[in-house]
Amino acid sequence: MQNLIRIGIVGYGNLGRGVETSIQKNPDLELVGIFTRRAPESVSPCFGDTKVFHMDDLNDFQDKIDVLILCGGSKDDLPKQTPELASKFNTVDSFDTHARIPEFFDAVDAPAKANNKTAMISIGWDPGMFSINRLFGEALLPDGETYTFWGKGLSQGHSDAIRRVEGVKAGVQYTIPSTDAIEKVRSGVRPVLTTKEKHTRECYVVLEDGADAEAVKHAIVTMPDYFADYNTTVNFIDEATLRAEHNTMPHGGFVIRSGNSSDAHNQVIEFSLKLDSNPEFTASVLVAYARATYRLNQMGQFGAKTAFDVAPGLLSSKSPEQLRKEIL
Amino acid sequence: MQNLIRIGIVGYGNLGRGVETSIQKNPDLELVGIFTRRAPESVSPCFGDTKVFHMDDLNDFQDKIDVLILCGGSKDDLPKQTPELASKFNTVDSFDTHARIPEFFDAVDAPAKANNKTAMISIGWDPGMFSINRLFGEALLPDGETYTFWGKGLSQGHSDAIRRVEGVKAGVQYTIPSTDAIEKVRSGVRPVLTTKEKHTRECYVVLEDGADAEAVKHAIVTMPDYFADYNTTVNFIDEATLRAEHNTMPHGGFVIRSGNSSDAHNQVIEFSLKLDSNPEFTASVLVAYARATYRLNQMGQFGAKTAFDVAPGLLSSKSPEQLRKEIL
Repeated sequence: MQNLIRIGIVGYGNLGRGVETSIQKNPDLELVGIFTRRAPESVSPCFGDTKVFHMDDLNDFQDKIDVLILCGGSKDDLPKQTPELASKFNTVDSFDTHARIPEFFDAVDAPAKANNKTAMISIGWDPGMFSINRLFGEALLPDGETYTFWGKGLSQGHSDAIRRVEGVKAGVQYTIPSTDAIEKVRSGVRPVLTTKEKHTRECYVVLEDGADAEAVKHAIVTMPDYFADYNTTVNFIDEATLRAEHNTMPHGGFVIRSGNSSDAHNQVIEFSLKLDSNPEFTASVLVAYARATYRLNQMGQFGAKTAFDVAPGLLSSKSPEQLRKEIL
Repeated sequence: MQNLIRIGIVGYGNLGRGVETSIQKNPDLELVGIFTRRAPESVSPCFGDTKVFHMDDLNDFQDKIDVLILCGGSKDDLPKQTPELASKFNTVDSFDTHARIPEFFDAVDAPAKANNKTAMISIGWDPGMFSINRLFGEALLPDGETYTFWGKGLSQGHSDAIRRVEGVKAGVQYTIPSTDAIEKVRSGVRPVLTTKEKHTRECYVVLEDGADAEAVKHAIVTMPDYFADYNTTVNFIDEATLRAEHNTMPHGGFVIRSGNSSDAHNQVIEFSLKLDSNPEFTASVLVAYARATYRLNQMGQFGAKTAFDVAPGLLSSKSPEQLRKEIL
């Protein structure tokens, strides 16, 4: 029996709870504890034997944790947290602001490399599993087009972004894919589709008392990276409606590559997800990549890494021999 | 501009033609030539500038070829060819007899390692892309079940197997997936499905003059690995019908993982292919993995490798920076 891989969780919202839950499903991993900026005794973990510590004590755990899974948000938490922590720990995060990944990569790569740590960034399903499938699509069928559709589903990143707008008390955002557009892509033609033609974004927002609805709406629909390029609708609802009708976090989507291997032959590659819980699935991906991160670090592969740098076999708890025998 | 990666093709049937065609779609690759056991002047390549050489001259090309793509069959060609050639060249093959992969791996690994060569085995879509998705499924959702469905489509490996039966002049085999079974799996329940419940195999066979139809049928339906475990039907047809109605090679299939990230939440991951031409798609996969094979060899990773050992980024002609910026 090899040693268990020891995991720490930084941040304890939906994603952190998902990671805690996922570790229970992976017998080769061991949860050392949750690290929070809140008072540890105020945090109620999902499992009775999970330990909770204050972030200030994290440095004492450098020899007791193999990989830290960072469960903060991409807008305010990770840009500061990952570069700092990657100098002391191997890390995995779900940084998902696509446009800023190159600068984030550089900010994380230097401290990780300087300290022989491995920092796996932008893990989850998009960026993450969807990115891998976009890469497979264009590598296998260079003469083709790739289409990514999201939803129907609640987007954590976009909901967080709404909630950070001044005057917003609570809110959720759903991304809706166009069925017509998906069918057109699957048929093998290669339609030109703008982002707006592929999806709409629907926001359900509870205002703070006295907030200016028009100002809130404007702040949301013009927000760069998140909403500005989309057809976004903002619906104002009361808190009871939000609790009753918007209390689950489903998501999903499709990555479709339509391409020609020759003039005569079209080929279609499709990857899709149908998720009951977006944060729990993202957490499951983070946990599998924590295993790979530990292994890459053991192999001397230091610095920032992404899903593109991880051979599939490193994600599995099974040995290469077992994988070749059982599922190749 | 970096140097082109120089490719050689060994064997020139449907798969070899597909590789020749695919290389035209990949500007960073260069086809040195086709190597055949036939008289080179009897071979007509798809493209006028493709050179054809005899297999006996292959040894003269050790310094002129970076990766050999082996396009022979899994039953008779590759078990002998790959171990021999992997001692002299980097190779990629599509060995697809799943049950024999472990022994094939060992037979290839030793000569490749001894000669600092990299031998990528069992590449294509199954084994290959489907295997990767089976691995992703169980690594991301350890509490779940994986279902692989094939078709509807013509299987090259199974058609080759039919054609090697004594008394068979020509023939094709179609694999048919069960729509009911697919829908049941997608719904999130985890049905127990036998191989027979998931598919049937339909064979269309032209007999040699005087062949014993019953003996041929028996030889097919009892063939281990290929047919013995399936509900197989054998239809005898004449040559004109075969040419008219069975002259294309479509295929495809589905890998579906249904799993629970927690007791409350089911998650479904699906990967599917809809292929106009099975050999051309398999060839496209072989070509992308030839690029990865060359890079692994440059990195000093010698010996037999499979799709499980290849980080996605190695498949792409783009740089890691470009991939992170454009498609992560």
